[in-house]
Amino acid sequence: MTASEIRELLRWATADVISFGGGMPDPSTFPIEDIAKIVAYVLEAYPHKALQYGSTEGVLELRQEIAKFSESFRGIRARPENIIVTVGSQEALELLGRVFIDPGDVVITENPTYLAALQAWRVYQPRLVGVPMDEHGMVVEILEERVKQLKAEGARIKFIYTIPTAQNPSGLTMSQDRRKYLLEVAERFDLMIVEDDPYSYFLFEPIEVSPIKALDKNDRVIYLSTASKIFAPGFRLGWVIAKEDVVKWFNLAKQSLNLNTSNFVQYIFAEGLRRNVVLKNLPHVRDLYKRKRDAMLAALETYMPPGVSWTRPSGGMFIWVTAPPHIDTKELLKTAVTQYKVAFVPGHGFFVDQSVRNAMRLNFTYPSFEQINEGIRRLAMAIKGA
Amino acid sequence: MTASEIRELLRWATADVISFGGGMPDPSTFPIEDIAKIVAYVLEAYPHKALQYGSTEGVLELRQEIAKFSESFRGIRARPENIIVTVGSQEALELLGRVFIDPGDVVITENPTYLAALQAWRVYQPRLVGVPMDEHGMVVEILEERVKQLKAEGARIKFIYTIPTAQNPSGLTMSQDRRKYLLEVAERFDLMIVEDDPYSYFLFEPIEVSPIKALDKNDRVIYLSTASKIFAPGFRLGWVIAKEDVVKWFNLAKQSLNLNTSNFVQYIFAEGLRRNVVLKNLPHVRDLYKRKRDAMLAALETYMPPGVSWTRPSGGMFIWVTAPPHIDTKELLKTAVTQYKVAFVPGHGFFVDQSVRNAMRLNFTYPSFEQINEGIRRLAMAIKGA
Repeated sequence: MTASEIRELLRWATADVISFGGGMPDPSTFPIEDIAKIVAYVLEAYPHKALQYGSTEGVLELRQEIAKFSESFRGIRARPENIIVTVGSQEALELLGRVFIDPGDVVITENPTYLAALQAWRVYQPRLVGVPMDEHGMVVEILEERVKQLKAEGARIKFIYTIPTAQNPSGLTMSQDRRKYLLEVAERFDLMIVEDDPYSYFLFEPIEVSPIKALDKNDRVIYLSTASKIFAPGFRLGWVIAKEDVVKWFNLAKQSLNLNTSNFVQYIFAEGLRRNVVLKNLPHVRDLYKRKRDAMLAALETYMPPGVSWTRPSGGMFIWVTAPPHIDTKELLKTAVTQYKVAFVPGHGFFVDQSVRNAMRLNFTYPSFEQINEGIRRLAMAIKGA
Repeated sequence: MTASEIRELLRWATADVISFGGGMPDPSTFPIEDIAKIVAYVLEAYPHKALQYGSTEGVLELRQEIAKFSESFRGIRARPENIIVTVGSQEALELLGRVFIDPGDVVITENPTYLAALQAWRVYQPRLVGVPMDEHGMVVEILEERVKQLKAEGARIKFIYTIPTAQNPSGLTMSQDRRKYLLEVAERFDLMIVEDDPYSYFLFEPIEVSPIKALDKNDRVIYLSTASKIFAPGFRLGWVIAKEDVVKWFNLAKQSLNLNTSNFVQYIFAEGLRRNVVLKNLPHVRDLYKRKRDAMLAALETYMPPGVSWTRPSGGMFIWVTAPPHIDTKELLKTAVTQYKVAFVPGHGFFVDQSVRNAMRLNFTYPSFEQINEGIRRLAMAIKGA
């Protein structure tokens, strides 16, 4: 059962299935009225630019707004030349594979890590090396050992991929000390870091961390983020902040993929940033997601049998659940969907070696509070019945 | 000088340069008012669907509308299961390469053909075989001979790529007899045809041709089209019509590229098709482009020195100009842009073997009538000075 088979299975799920699969925002968070006003303005003020072809790197006005937003809100200094706009973060993951990975090259990731990143890169046949996490995120001591070994073997390490804040799928956040240590290791061994940062907008706890990119003096970090979680996923907008060389390589590769990202949606998001729609909206969204996380944690506490454990995510969109060792969550998914009418993503695909078979990822942002409670009740029954 | 270098050069062109490069529609053809009304409606009627993530194959309502449009307007019968929505036609070209081409596989194209298709495929290292054209389009007799030879050699022919109507870059249209003959050859040798059809909406002459896909009884044709020329390029929307297997493979490959095409722009275009905006708009656009073509033909006639020849395109967006043999148009471009303030795309990159060095492609849809006349005057001076 591959990720696409799971997609198929989740797609066949009937309307009465409560889904904790996917990673969708709550649609009530979409700034619909702001967007309607902005679109009317864009089509009035500069329709010929918004509806025309655009440049591969993206609309200049948007890259300027992203630069401002990143500096004021994330502490990342970048000029428009350091930014390329992508069709969601997924395209940035594809570009990383296409530009950097030759067969046999090493890519180091947290283990587990984002399933769709692994999928995008497997086409390019890297050797994937996973580093375990603890409650402070990736264990950089272990990373350092692995890098030493790999270097001794003569391996070509292309980059270290991390989702340091509210990681997908674990929900864990890397401590500030670990971030500095990671950057130090990268400096020492002359490595690139890819920092994927879709979730740091939604930290529920007062954790003081900065993006690794904000600490990056020597352009070692390729930073990825997205409008999908803070504006609307329906626009398919992401961006990469990196040194100019990387942006130029990505630009070349992107020309073949799709020439350019939709100008229309880029101008809308640029105007959204300019009007401060994102920052205005965030506190409400963060509060909603925190309450949904708490509702799911409470339901897990209430319904789950002994032997089931889960993370308490510091932010983001997911809780990572570990079932008793005798349960294979791929098998469980079939009965969960068909008999118990509840869905989730089995954990297997998040591991570089598919080594763990009893984990699953649950999304808490999309389902309603009622669905969270009822869905976890059903899932607990499915686990008890397995 | 690669295609991307040309892109760079065209980008550096100052504001006083008249550009016949690119392939942009005239912005006056964008149905701005209709789009404004549609967006307001979409954000009122189903904002939560339009702003959310979507399925990789595309929004069902859009695939239904494309099926209707293709049947009524193009004579192509398709169900939504036969359709996948892409980020412009460029993504469809990328998907063709990714899914079908292994190193050394043969891809047969018209010669010259669309530069960006060749670029997208070169990454996958095919053996590109070009077939010449005459005034009836690809010379299928020669294609047949090449196919026989290739089959005798044991070559794996993956597909025949054609832009049968108002071809890019030549402007030529394949006759109906040739289309039938091409399909016959494909049947006899068990080959796939890729029919790229962005321009058949703009035939200026009363030529009676149907899409090859409309003649295709046995699902041999993968048909590509786009909203860029008939609605607005700023949406980056294209689509593929093919047998279900092909759609499923493309779906799998597209998941890694960008998960899905923007739901927002898909719903807008679906509504545009439903409200008949495209067909309502076409006669005006066709007439405008015909007049622009005629203006460029007249200017060429007026200004060009002896030894320069050009096609009389039956439709589409481009005129193909052949300069005297001593002129290398890549070299010419540099002086044309810097001294004479006029730009074009050198022909080299449109040939599978870069064998022709004295051709160029001129776009007549984007520049104004005044720019067409003045730009051709400048270009003629540049050629005389070379």
